[in-house]
Amino acid sequence: MVLKYQRHKNSSVIYKTEIMNENIKKNLSFLKSALTEESSFISTAEVINWLKERNEAVNVKITKIKFKDLIGWSFSEGQFNLKHNSGKFFSIDGIKVKTNYGNLSEWEQPIINQPEIGYLGFITKEFDGILHFLVQAKIEPGNVNNVQLSPTLQATRSNYTQVHNGKAPRYLEYFRDRNRCTVLLDQLQSEQGARFLHKRNRNIIVQTEENVEIHDDFIWLTLGQIKKLIQYDNLVNMDTRTVISGIPFGSFTSSTIDFFRAIDKNRISPTAEAMLESALKNDKALMSIDEIIAWFTNLKCKFDLNVSKMSLADINDWIIDDYEIRHKDNKFFKVIATEVEISNREVAKWMQPLVQPAQEGLIAFIVKKINGVYHFLIQAKLESGNFDVLEMAPTVQCLTGNYRQTAEGALPFLKTVLNVQNEDIIFDTLQSEEGGRFYQEQNRNLLIKVNDDFNESIPSDYCWMTLNQLHSFLKYNNYLNIQARSLISAISFI
Amino acid sequence: MVLKYQRHKNSSVIYKTEIMNENIKKNLSFLKSALTEESSFISTAEVINWLKERNEAVNVKITKIKFKDLIGWSFSEGQFNLKHNSGKFFSIDGIKVKTNYGNLSEWEQPIINQPEIGYLGFITKEFDGILHFLVQAKIEPGNVNNVQLSPTLQATRSNYTQVHNGKAPRYLEYFRDRNRCTVLLDQLQSEQGARFLHKRNRNIIVQTEENVEIHDDFIWLTLGQIKKLIQYDNLVNMDTRTVISGIPFGSFTSSTIDFFRAIDKNRISPTAEAMLESALKNDKALMSIDEIIAWFTNLKCKFDLNVSKMSLADINDWIIDDYEIRHKDNKFFKVIATEVEISNREVAKWMQPLVQPAQEGLIAFIVKKINGVYHFLIQAKLESGNFDVLEMAPTVQCLTGNYRQTAEGALPFLKTVLNVQNEDIIFDTLQSEEGGRFYQEQNRNLLIKVNDDFNESIPSDYCWMTLNQLHSFLKYNNYLNIQARSLISAISFI
Repeated sequence: MVLKYQRHKNSSVIYKTEIMNENIKKNLSFLKSALTEESSFISTAEVINWLKERNEAVNVKITKIKFKDLIGWSFSEGQFNLKHNSGKFFSIDGIKVKTNYGNLSEWEQPIINQPEIGYLGFITKEFDGILHFLVQAKIEPGNVNNVQLSPTLQATRSNYTQVHNGKAPRYLEYFRDRNRCTVLLDQLQSEQGARFLHKRNRNIIVQTEENVEIHDDFIWLTLGQIKKLIQYDNLVNMDTRTVISGIPFGSFTSSTIDFFRAIDKNRISPTAEAMLESALKNDKALMSIDEIIAWFTNLKCKFDLNVSKMSLADINDWIIDDYEIRHKDNKFFKVIATEVEISNREVAKWMQPLVQPAQEGLIAFIVKKINGVYHFLIQAKLESGNFDVLEMAPTVQCLTGNYRQTAEGALPFLKTVLNVQNEDIIFDTLQSEEGGRFYQEQNRNLLIKVNDDFNESIPSDYCWMTLNQLHSFLKYNNYLNIQARSLISAISFI
Repeated sequence: MVLKYQRHKNSSVIYKTEIMNENIKKNLSFLKSALTEESSFISTAEVINWLKERNEAVNVKITKIKFKDLIGWSFSEGQFNLKHNSGKFFSIDGIKVKTNYGNLSEWEQPIINQPEIGYLGFITKEFDGILHFLVQAKIEPGNVNNVQLSPTLQATRSNYTQVHNGKAPRYLEYFRDRNRCTVLLDQLQSEQGARFLHKRNRNIIVQTEENVEIHDDFIWLTLGQIKKLIQYDNLVNMDTRTVISGIPFGSFTSSTIDFFRAIDKNRISPTAEAMLESALKNDKALMSIDEIIAWFTNLKCKFDLNVSKMSLADINDWIIDDYEIRHKDNKFFKVIATEVEISNREVAKWMQPLVQPAQEGLIAFIVKKINGVYHFLIQAKLESGNFDVLEMAPTVQCLTGNYRQTAEGALPFLKTVLNVQNEDIIFDTLQSEEGGRFYQEQNRNLLIKVNDDFNESIPSDYCWMTLNQLHSFLKYNNYLNIQARSLISAISFI
């Protein structure tokens, strides 16, 4: 049957004569790229060197300054909030949170308010039959190491729609002019719920057949390479990780997968193979999707999240001084005023607030073979900025509190994660938060496996899911939180 | 393999050794009930008579009164809003809406604000191997015909959790004590976006094996009977329709379905058969789920919805007089103060505001065979009270405006729907909105088919989907709006 996808310019319509095969073809194309570490362009080792060179070629100087010297930004009357004078970008607001979730029923905190949807997009193209992603070595002021791998396009909605007629971001035309490419993925995903109020990003992957001009600092990488690079500390930025976490690889019965694995002579590592099976098999899960939805609905109805705006100046236990908005005991995070100077081929200078965490955080998934397939231990977690009360989070997520000071037994599964034996670690790396907002924030990302003797009985706000099921929920808005997605992005099948 | 589902009382955990078969068994159990119109208890014709008798045995008197006589309710200072003195139930608030969707970029309106989640639940039980639903003949003050068929349980969250220790609603114990039943469905679903601000209901279906005491006004019906009864005007209430719309029937390849249809000697009507195939076949859709998500994400990012609270008294073009909150030209709807007196076996009397529509509305799906399977023409629609900007709506939805006065061509597909030939009507009935909030609101529900020569090219905010795909989206929060769900609930496979 003919595969056809057409958009008629004049009638603004879409039609198509046959699609399901095309969908399987798309999943397969992603999977082949994920299974390929050899690029026609650059080896993974060379990418690491290239990033190192790029990093050394640039000098980023961040100076902490006084809020009163932060040109372009100011506190509104009575220090209600901190905002850009144009009303654009973002503001730091105060919120009062009431909830029946967790031990703390009421608190106040500063939060980043950025109502505009962020656009994160990759251009992809097939070379020698393998899909490659156009990746940028991008400088962000808050990065611990200056330069990290970012999507082809990082833009605000205003950049994207060009309403202000500013300078168009590079490659924008491939995303805006849908005749130049096919859309492979287009999803709305959440940002950190403890730091952002209802913030969402649009994650887009397009495929083109055109000859793409490659600007400085851009390279073509396979998905397998990107996933390998996430196995290293702080090479791949958060925006890349969220986009690639949403990539679907297909859904098949166990017998189909077992059949094709049996005739495949190229064995991969046992862990990678088990991950691939967890990603693809759709009939080995402990609970069905409907049951997981019922579990999640029950918890969403059980927990309240009531958030109201308040003045920054009135937030209990927080202090606004000349340089910082901080907790009186320096807990959680602080908002700092900075002057940024980046010297590369040319010099750029600007001022902006950044959010600095009080300490390094920890996020971890525990996985266990159940019914012969890896299941991930998911937590239903409430965070103040969540769009819809709860999101599905990693087994352990300690970002705002200090996990090294958490009382023994206070946080489920923390002890299991911290006491993991080396042979049970699937990966253990440091990954950065978005360097445009966060100052040198990096968190430990851990994926560990547990043995058969690990008790499957879990608290009622936890649930076991296969990777195939996580991919199903990931398609829909606001199910998996950004920390869960960051961990999923790092799962390699090779 | 052993099917096992256990909740350990002491450890509050769930585990299970094998589940996927159980899920197929559950879908099949729903499907068998949907295909059964013969009940062990009461025939469909008898239900209609029984409802008629119930309706005649009750006298409902609604008197329009002045707001100042509405005991228990009052306007807040400066008529900012209208609310119950306890702060419970609901309030009528004012909102200002800004959007780039549609022709009107800014408006102000009253809206119902009811933050508490409503609980709508059915108890089901197998008799002679067929699942039956425990349905109540329930009086609601706003119903055009007093009594309609409602779910076993209609409760507020406070009723449900018994926080106020009031009188427990009948059968609540089956929903609260999860050892007495299995959960078949538990979903969060939206209410009318033009009338309610972010309101959601929890839709629950549980199955028990206990002997259930049958109170007056309760009967056991098959799903096939309920769906047949929706083919009549105003017999089945909105709450029943939303819960049963969410029921999944399974997902299979065409070859599986074709195989079993071929060996099935009990032919059903061609339209019912085509609907069943659209519900079950998962490989004949024009667009894949991923592509539909991409289509919907693109529109969600295109349209803004900015809603802010304002005083009722300040709403442009709306008037608060002694008896009503109404538009100056009596358009859209009005809020009225009423005294309700219901005389049945005993007399009950209370006062409450109700929302009265300006006219009867129209909702319609156009369906067309594409790839041999019925596809539904879906509209991405923005309404002021939507939780997440857009929801998937019927092809034509005219509720707040008067469709009889709509200019020709102003509303896509309205003409096709209004000019439908008799032989192309799958159903055409009047259905009521929730009688606890709405005064005699009934809307025309239409499902019509179009021929091959109907142009598949459609505006960019419309999309063709199979019933199987609609059921997929229905599982997740806030995809299908309540009008789309109402139409889907009426689709019969017999």
